[in-house]
Amino acid sequence: MEFDEVVRGRRSIRTFSTAEVSDELVEALIDCALRAPSSMNGQPWRFIVVRSAETKGRLAETKDKYCPPGKREYPAGFLRGAPVVVITCIERAKAFDRGIESGVLATGHLLLAAASRGLTGVYMSAYKTGAPEVADEIRTILGVPAEIDPITIVPIGYPGDVAGPKTVMSAAEVVFHEAFGRK
Amino acid sequence: MEFDEVVRGRRSIRTFSTAEVSDELVEALIDCALRAPSSMNGQPWRFIVVRSAETKGRLAETKDKYCPPGKREYPAGFLRGAPVVVITCIERAKAFDRGIESGVLATGHLLLAAASRGLTGVYMSAYKTGAPEVADEIRTILGVPAEIDPITIVPIGYPGDVAGPKTVMSAAEVVFHEAFGRK
Repeated sequence: MEFDEVVRGRRSIRTFSTAEVSDELVEALIDCALRAPSSMNGQPWRFIVVRSAETKGRLAETKDKYCPPGKREYPAGFLRGAPVVVITCIERAKAFDRGIESGVLATGHLLLAAASRGLTGVYMSAYKTGAPEVADEIRTILGVPAEIDPITIVPIGYPGDVAGPKTVMSAAEVVFHEAFGRK
Repeated sequence: MEFDEVVRGRRSIRTFSTAEVSDELVEALIDCALRAPSSMNGQPWRFIVVRSAETKGRLAETKDKYCPPGKREYPAGFLRGAPVVVITCIERAKAFDRGIESGVLATGHLLLAAASRGLTGVYMSAYKTGAPEVADEIRTILGVPAEIDPITIVPIGYPGDVAGPKTVMSAAEVVFHEAFGRK
């Protein structure tokens, strides 16, 4: 699919069809994620592909347990309906103090790669700054060692719903020239 | 350009040709950045487009001044050679405690959009966790108010050099199933 069409078509749909997503397809998405930039080209990524209903349920419970009051309009239970959930982790020793950034960049590639193949994925964080118990609980669920940081949780599947139109700002509204505030 | 071709072709080239990059082209890249996901769909982004040689020089000096010893093989001076530098900022009040993530996701879109148009861009951070003086100095250079966080600095231009082949890991090396370490 054309790049701009992928970017414009990408949406965070939280209802999935029952259509299967093969391991080969998931590996193709991860291959795109591995082509993201990373600090010092450390490529610190590891991915966990989850299909177990029990594990999905535990991830959703943990997300909801630590969901701040202001974000409860987006409960995590929908991830139980995704055929596959990909957790992006980073190996701290290879991340050069930019593990979050590298993990987020790889996740951005993963989401676009999904959109390019007609899939939908939803970005969810796997840690919370100042609240290490969030990442720790996710580590326990997935057997992730202490030197690895889980960064994101992305439920992926074919959309089971059609997204309404998304309104984005225009570049003219958000661009300044030479200094902040200067149009 | 086809999506996978863009992802595979994207590289962080630090030498730029003298070819101009128009404001219209920069706005097209920013339009792609604005289509990234953001927490609660807050779309907290603001962008500063810098062409001034003096400002580029000050940004490079600040980056080099705070560069950790282990990263000095990548000095920032090359950004003086970029026809345009885009600083992605986020408005903290619209970021729902995920400003870094939303800023990084938009930057990832920006870099891919550049690659899709034959441009190259290099990801540079505009803050350092635990060292607020980095972001503060960048705020001063660009007149960014305190409630806005600069997240990334991306020099953009047509490549003035050909990148050597990039070796990335294969998905098989970095993917586990159901739990960390399980192949």
